Amino acid sequence: MSSVRDARIRAWVTLAHCELPQRDLVALLRAAGDPETLLASRGRIDGVDVAPATREMLMSPPADAVAATLAWLESPAHQLVTWEDADYPQKLLEIGDAPPVMFHMGRRELLNRPAVAIVGSRQATPQGLDDARAFARALAGAGVTVVSGLAQGIDAAAHEGALAEAGGTIAVVGTGLDRVYPSANRKLAHAIAERGSLLSEFVPGTEPLKWHFPRRNRLIAGLSRGVLVIEANLSSGSLITARLAGDQGREVMAVPGSIHAPLSKGCHKLIREGAKLVETAQDVLVEIGVNVATPPRSDTAPHAIDAATRTAYAPLLDAMGTVPMDLDKLVQRTGLPAQAIAAQLTALEIDGIVAALPGGKWQRRY
Amino acid sequence: MSSVRDARIRAWVTLAHCELPQRDLVALLRAAGDPETLLASRGRIDGVDVAPATREMLMSPPADAVAATLAWLESPAHQLVTWEDADYPQKLLEIGDAPPVMFHMGRRELLNRPAVAIVGSRQATPQGLDDARAFARALAGAGVTVVSGLAQGIDAAAHEGALAEAGGTIAVVGTGLDRVYPSANRKLAHAIAERGSLLSEFVPGTEPLKWHFPRRNRLIAGLSRGVLVIEANLSSGSLITARLAGDQGREVMAVPGSIHAPLSKGCHKLIREGAKLVETAQDVLVEIGVNVATPPRSDTAPHAIDAATRTAYAPLLDAMGTVPMDLDKLVQRTGLPAQAIAAQLTALEIDGIVAALPGGKWQRRY
Repeated sequence: MSSVRDARIRAWVTLAHCELPQRDLVALLRAAGDPETLLASRGRIDGVDVAPATREMLMSPPADAVAATLAWLESPAHQLVTWEDADYPQKLLEIGDAPPVMFHMGRRELLNRPAVAIVGSRQATPQGLDDARAFARALAGAGVTVVSGLAQGIDAAAHEGALAEAGGTIAVVGTGLDRVYPSANRKLAHAIAERGSLLSEFVPGTEPLKWHFPRRNRLIAGLSRGVLVIEANLSSGSLITARLAGDQGREVMAVPGSIHAPLSKGCHKLIREGAKLVETAQDVLVEIGVNVATPPRSDTAPHAIDAATRTAYAPLLDAMGTVPMDLDKLVQRTGLPAQAIAAQLTALEIDGIVAALPGGKWQRRY
Repeated sequence: MSSVRDARIRAWVTLAHCELPQRDLVALLRAAGDPETLLASRGRIDGVDVAPATREMLMSPPADAVAATLAWLESPAHQLVTWEDADYPQKLLEIGDAPPVMFHMGRRELLNRPAVAIVGSRQATPQGLDDARAFARALAGAGVTVVSGLAQGIDAAAHEGALAEAGGTIAVVGTGLDRVYPSANRKLAHAIAERGSLLSEFVPGTEPLKWHFPRRNRLIAGLSRGVLVIEANLSSGSLITARLAGDQGREVMAVPGSIHAPLSKGCHKLIREGAKLVETAQDVLVEIGVNVATPPRSDTAPHAIDAATRTAYAPLLDAMGTVPMDLDKLVQRTGLPAQAIAAQLTALEIDGIVAALPGGKWQRRY
């Protein structure tokens, strides 16, 4: 490793440990051009107005913690992902507040795949967990990466379902990557670190603090083309993730359920507010614009003539062909009483199968 | 009964029995002005172009059947409802093909009440039947008349739920009013004829013919401000009723369910196509614009500060007040480390609770 590269890594890690307000960090970094220049400036950069407290934070990075993170990065399994990297997730750059530096374990190539987030309740029902696994497995099987937050419940089930499939899975966590929260997901976290992608904007050693989770949620949405919510009550954090996704221009999708199920209420609220109701992984692929070579949903529009209608009205439909025809002609062709034909024509017109034309004529539309 | 009135009734009944194509009947009647004139014209009216078969139908009304219907109308329980009547359902006149003459039993005043249709599967689940009864009871309890088609399943449950409530119920049937189809609903039909309203555009004696049901469906939608679908598979006639309702400018609403329930698929299809997802009778009242003095749905928007957030961020939120404030001031006021404040501000900004202002200042929005 060159000393120039070492210095750059040290500067990124130091900046990460300063924990500046995100807005200030981005503004200063954009003006300074690179992290070393920013650190050397001590926060006094022309045209960037930050509070004295921000400058103070920049001038007092915690030396021991920086050293510990640099030691953590010695392992080839532990990586930085910064704005400078060609494989920084491009989708994330679309959101206003993409973090300049993040920590990573696992398969970096997953960071730039078409992705969809699956989120939901920590207290999911067994059916909800099954659904999360099944959606994740089918989506990842179609090559789409499944993003979630490594929480218990829907998050964990989504990661599990996607892990072994082609698309794989990204877990965005609200702690340092040397911690696992919740501890129930330790084994899953290790599997993702090996076979998937584990991502955090927090420095190693960061504990699970309540206010880290909304930040984590914006990254989950930001990495994805769309967010699918499976089971959420009305106070679920998943609704916030969905709102962030909408603000970021991502597709918002929700799985409906019984009106008597508390964990469907959040999904129903989202659907009422414009989220797309989805029933299958195929629906999700259509929404996020991923083309998969499968037969399209069969056309069940009431306009199509179904077999039963076809049979019931066969003599009349056969007599009509597709040429405009009046009642007399139809009586003559079918041998049916005029009343019966009139009644059937009215029914077929209501069904949208025949059209009434000027001059008392009728024509088949299908 | 005056002989003038008798003659008018006889003319309406005769016209009904001619069973002209609806379009021809309306055009002829509009041009002729009244049914006697129309009958006397034998279908030869200036400016109205109908097929010879229509004229033939008009010239050969079935005399015995007309006499039987006139006898049926002798009972005070049996009535005509025609375009001439002041209490002809006004809502129905909004649709293009309102029938000029219908047959009726029961409480005519129900025909001009604010109404909502409840329709769905004939093979409904027990839960679907419970839901139909509960929605109907609550809506009729709020003074809204519940319209349906007297079919088995959801239709029957909706009538049952509404029958005893203030709004009452209207059954629009696809047979003559002297028939009950299906026969399983005989008792219900009699109850509706007494305490609700039973309506048909078909002359007494008309059997349940397949092509009468779409006509019946357009009246169900036409009488109502909106149509609520509770349980429907993808080939359900309820989807046709919903489509007719949409074409007629009525609200279309559907109750969601599990993605694994075949009888939810039709409802989900409607919701994807723009129908409103409803969970409660209150949701329906809002959609159809009926104001009921009940507390509005509690605001569960993620923007509101919930109790848990309030507690977690109390020192910072209290320190902020609602005046724009910079990080230094917040450090000074709270005594918290700048990093902790920065992290909390970022979380609160993502939650939409605080806003980042120019000049490094922050302000509470709530």
